[in-house]
Amino acid sequence: MIIIMKTGTPKEDVQPVIDRVGELGLQAHPIYGEGQTIVGVVGTPLPPSLDELFEVLPGVERVVRVSRKYKLAGWDFHPAKTVIRLGDDVVIGGDAVTIIAGPCSVETHDQTLATAHAVKAAGATLLRGGAYKPRTSPYEFRGLGEAGLEILAEARAETGLRIITEVMTPSDVAVVGRYTDVFQIGARNCQNYLLLEEVGQAGKPVMLKRGLSLLIEEWLLAAEYVMAQGNPDVILCERGIRTFEQATRNTLDVSAVPVVQSLSHLPVFIDPSHAAGKRAFVGALALAGVAAGADGLMIEVHPSPDQALSDGAQSLDGPEFAALMPQLQAVAEAVGRTLQIPSEVAV
Amino acid sequence: MIIIMKTGTPKEDVQPVIDRVGELGLQAHPIYGEGQTIVGVVGTPLPPSLDELFEVLPGVERVVRVSRKYKLAGWDFHPAKTVIRLGDDVVIGGDAVTIIAGPCSVETHDQTLATAHAVKAAGATLLRGGAYKPRTSPYEFRGLGEAGLEILAEARAETGLRIITEVMTPSDVAVVGRYTDVFQIGARNCQNYLLLEEVGQAGKPVMLKRGLSLLIEEWLLAAEYVMAQGNPDVILCERGIRTFEQATRNTLDVSAVPVVQSLSHLPVFIDPSHAAGKRAFVGALALAGVAAGADGLMIEVHPSPDQALSDGAQSLDGPEFAALMPQLQAVAEAVGRTLQIPSEVAV
Amino acid sequence: MIIIMKTGTPKEDVQPVIDRVGELGLQAHPIYGEGQTIVGVVGTPLPPSLDELFEVLPGVERVVRVSRKYKLAGWDFHPAKTVIRLGDDVVIGGDAVTIIAGPCSVETHDQTLATAHAVKAAGATLLRGGAYKPRTSPYEFRGLGEAGLEILAEARAETGLRIITEVMTPSDVAVVGRYTDVFQIGARNCQNYLLLEEVGQAGKPVMLKRGLSLLIEEWLLAAEYVMAQGNPDVILCERGIRTFEQATRNTLDVSAVPVVQSLSHLPVFIDPSHAAGKRAFVGALALAGVAAGADGLMIEVHPSPDQALSDGAQSLDGPEFAALMPQLQAVAEAVGRTLQIPSEVAV
Amino acid sequence: MIIIMKTGTPKEDVQPVIDRVGELGLQAHPIYGEGQTIVGVVGTPLPPSLDELFEVLPGVERVVRVSRKYKLAGWDFHPAKTVIRLGDDVVIGGDAVTIIAGPCSVETHDQTLATAHAVKAAGATLLRGGAYKPRTSPYEFRGLGEAGLEILAEARAETGLRIITEVMTPSDVAVVGRYTDVFQIGARNCQNYLLLEEVGQAGKPVMLKRGLSLLIEEWLLAAEYVMAQGNPDVILCERGIRTFEQATRNTLDVSAVPVVQSLSHLPVFIDPSHAAGKRAFVGALALAGVAAGADGLMIEVHPSPDQALSDGAQSLDGPEFAALMPQLQAVAEAVGRTLQIPSEVAV
Repeated sequence: MIIIMKTGTPKEDVQPVIDRVGELGLQAHPIYGEGQTIVGVVGTPLPPSLDELFEVLPGVERVVRVSRKYKLAGWDFHPAKTVIRLGDDVVIGGDAVTIIAGPCSVETHDQTLATAHAVKAAGATLLRGGAYKPRTSPYEFRGLGEAGLEILAEARAETGLRIITEVMTPSDVAVVGRYTDVFQIGARNCQNYLLLEEVGQAGKPVMLKRGLSLLIEEWLLAAEYVMAQGNPDVILCERGIRTFEQATRNTLDVSAVPVVQSLSHLPVFIDPSHAAGKRAFVGALALAGVAAGADGLMIEVHPSPDQALSDGAQSLDGPEFAALMPQLQAVAEAVGRTLQIPSEVAV
Repeated sequence: MIIIMKTGTPKEDVQPVIDRVGELGLQAHPIYGEGQTIVGVVGTPLPPSLDELFEVLPGVERVVRVSRKYKLAGWDFHPAKTVIRLGDDVVIGGDAVTIIAGPCSVETHDQTLATAHAVKAAGATLLRGGAYKPRTSPYEFRGLGEAGLEILAEARAETGLRIITEVMTPSDVAVVGRYTDVFQIGARNCQNYLLLEEVGQAGKPVMLKRGLSLLIEEWLLAAEYVMAQGNPDVILCERGIRTFEQATRNTLDVSAVPVVQSLSHLPVFIDPSHAAGKRAFVGALALAGVAAGADGLMIEVHPSPDQALSDGAQSLDGPEFAALMPQLQAVAEAVGRTLQIPSEVAV
Repeated sequence: MIIIMKTGTPKEDVQPVIDRVGELGLQAHPIYGEGQTIVGVVGTPLPPSLDELFEVLPGVERVVRVSRKYKLAGWDFHPAKTVIRLGDDVVIGGDAVTIIAGPCSVETHDQTLATAHAVKAAGATLLRGGAYKPRTSPYEFRGLGEAGLEILAEARAETGLRIITEVMTPSDVAVVGRYTDVFQIGARNCQNYLLLEEVGQAGKPVMLKRGLSLLIEEWLLAAEYVMAQGNPDVILCERGIRTFEQATRNTLDVSAVPVVQSLSHLPVFIDPSHAAGKRAFVGALALAGVAAGADGLMIEVHPSPDQALSDGAQSLDGPEFAALMPQLQAVAEAVGRTLQIPSEVAV
Repeated sequence: MIIIMKTGTPKEDVQPVIDRVGELGLQAHPIYGEGQTIVGVVGTPLPPSLDELFEVLPGVERVVRVSRKYKLAGWDFHPAKTVIRLGDDVVIGGDAVTIIAGPCSVETHDQTLATAHAVKAAGATLLRGGAYKPRTSPYEFRGLGEAGLEILAEARAETGLRIITEVMTPSDVAVVGRYTDVFQIGARNCQNYLLLEEVGQAGKPVMLKRGLSLLIEEWLLAAEYVMAQGNPDVILCERGIRTFEQATRNTLDVSAVPVVQSLSHLPVFIDPSHAAGKRAFVGALALAGVAAGADGLMIEVHPSPDQALSDGAQSLDGPEFAALMPQLQAVAEAVGRTLQIPSEVAV
């Protein structure tokens, strides 16, 4: 940690800062420059909120933290890339790019099964579908609950697709966990820490969508909450951040892919559907995500987007999704990867 | 609702849109302009996600919603300003400006009591203090839990201050509700809908902090979640939004005060401490908030900011807070209001 | 245009709005809904600031513009994609993807020529290099001026690369125009309207970088300024927008590629270097740009990034750029395109 | 300056960084921590882009600049607050708060004179009005040019108000300088460096509006461009930044007032009109600005906002402005200041 003193702070006013460092059992290394002094702080372990303790001292202009606040999510403590296996045949974070597809919401048995068959035939390996839906308005459709989970389980039984579905609150973790293969934590809940800890104890992989205005560092700290409970299987999913631009629902931060990969061993996915908010742009963003090195994609597909109870405008229909898959495969190969296609499917 | 067709869409392609409006039991009013057609939609009630149903139809460029999605939070259904009473003597949302002050976290009995006495003497009417703390890192101090609530209750008993404290998850609502006078929902939980519904049933006022990147409309919809459970006593608190500027911890959106007041009857507060992130700027933001018409302020005060376990850098100490109060009083009077000062205190 | 009246505005208060529409020679189509009235406005031509005239009238809540403010930049008036030719062999906006590469600044003859030869050998067709540099601080290196232009011209003569260089102010357009093949307008000058008009009259193509917080619609209106002077050859270049995220210098809005292509016939490029700000992320963003459908890339390359007078941290060196090109070629082919490689070069 | 090495960089890889510091004639102070090394750099003068030179070296994670890049705009080189005098009676940056008011554009003689008389009678000391207007679209009204300047001069002669008007390009500085008392640089031109240098040599005060997404540090560096030409009389004006929130035209960053005052001796103003974009919110933002400590306000006033050729929606009319002035006076007094009211006017 580095403490930057205000310009012109005299040496005697730096001493209390140095003393405070010593009181905490750490070592201070002051560097006296022209008019400005900095104090390097070293020692182990640095308390997590150490910067706040010093920012408040007289004469201190600001404090720069050098070490990262997350440990389990970073490369230092886990030098190999995290690879997550779902049964014998589905691998997330390996060489192959994983495609998750499905409707925003599980609406009916027929809609879900039709989508499952369509995305399976096109080469997806996981089925998404919300049974518990966070909605901006209390008056909107909020999902079928456990009945939706049962439909998802049936789709899995019929197609062999693994399933991923959102859990919104700690008390639902048990029921969702009885059905799902992967827990999804939505963007709005990315800093719902008690939920993160609950899924951290639930023994199944967790996909953590990035909050709408979350710094990448904060996102990794959210992953750390899950991992600190003993669950190493976290997947990060970028789904667009909120900016001033209104032409898309959100702004896909495609840079998050290489940035996360430089900081963390966790797999990183792209959700082009929530980022775009408009069906016409989904394909381009999906291709960009794979080209940037994403380990997977999560794409909204609905058999009849114009009848969807939620997010129809950003959903591909089955033929659009099927047409996109060979392009994704080609781009994956262009960057030295491949799509993970179920063995019985040809793309 | 207004449906805007793509330029050059021929009349026959507008017809399916008109037909779909009719199928939903609503009335369509097409207006054919030079090259561009719009379709006005009227009828009652407009389903909440109606725009999504039409955005997805062929030929539709975009859909503009005219009516607001929230009802209980808006002026249309509640033409008088909401006034919340805590016992006989504390009024929120009336003519007087309410001052809430206290530490970020309840750390110890002595720290809390000392702060309570100091802020009471300076003229505050509510004591804030976190017993359950959301922290970006899982390794930081996370509050004393129920022991902290007990300390707050003791401070209330000693000083007569009402208390407000944060609740983070639905299963804690019962225990927090046994102690607190007002529930605080933090910025990170502003769209934690199940928590909002739980406090909506808990029979006590709720302060809802604005999420870091929440549109004002979404914030009012979050309030609607609480109100739809039968709890009309919601206080909105602007605490800074996330922008590109790094000189302050967040950017105080002081415009939120008049904007909210134009849209809603709910009281609106300003939290200058979390917005500024630096003690030196708190006073200016507090004064700006009162001048803009805020119904109250929530200010962090700590007896020894340099010893605080959280947010020390943005906390005023007791004398700083005491010095600010007469300025706040003067500005309140300049805009035709007054501070609500406990009767036994002189500012 | 659509005028949305405030809820509950009585019919007699809508009449003055209708009358005002008539005074302007346009037609008003009121639609009276439950409690809310909207007024559709049609007629030709709609004055450009018509919305402002109505927003101010009593009873008006807001005005929604339906038609786009730009004409020449949009598809309606130019249904074919713009293709720009530089001499016989360089085509921008055609099927092939164009690669521009070179240093941030022209520093010396040797640095520029070395870079030119390196990027030519790797397959670039245009050389970038700044002779006039906008710098945040007045105390930084600001370019060699005309001496830099001469070096660029020499590099063109030696390598056959076309050149693109920035012009910062109207009075420099003449001198820069004597040397360059394409004018570059930097992000800071994207709304410097008099400069846009000056290059609009200079008879050479113009690359218009997107301003740091410019809406895509405003960017197209900036292009319209150039085009309205009779210059149809405008290239749009996305180079990152400013957001809260600090891990990259800016946030590449890769969605801008499909969004611009849906709105405009103009070629759209990606500058991954300024977006990333860090060399390690440039490759991933470049690949993402091509995958998203960009018509070209502008990449900073410097023979010795650690000696660069500006932007060294985000510059690739020659071998890094040469290694990236085959990957770009592969991704271009994966999305049905190819790189435009000079005929005498093999990638 | 502080160079932060990547975790685990061995000592021998730190040496080249230390050597490079020495080559530049500066001193390196390495601090070896647990796994992480930092290198403090001191010496005079630190070159302006020094951070870029080191960010690019192998093993360097990032570089933190400690000293500020601006000099003339900061307190270190100018410990007294800047006070600007316009003739005998108008003072900017002193104890009193200065009110600038007037129309967005000078449209006609009568409109301008009527406004001038109205704002003078209400207590303003400067008249604003645009003769050269930057407009997002090339098809909008762009001002009367020199004829507009003549009208402003006439208004000054009739009322005694000083005038401030925008200059958009270096070649207009001479003509605008013949009429105006203060140059205004608009938000879009805040980083138009050649324009800044031109007005820096023109011998009259300059108001520099903050760019839509400019960091406060960059804004001060823009002021530095003016000041480095020998012109110390720069006024900073916050007019709203661009954020995700759409309820206001821009988001007023009222924190900019205390932040600028902590960093710079230059006067800082607030423009509530462009920030709000809606007349109904202008008053609240103006009051907030004064309460936060602004040295002045710039408010749009138009005799008939519904006839204005630009920005009518955000303009107060004469009576609204006159009603606001006593409230501003009261708030100014509440924070220990006063409005600077022309001696012959009573508020």
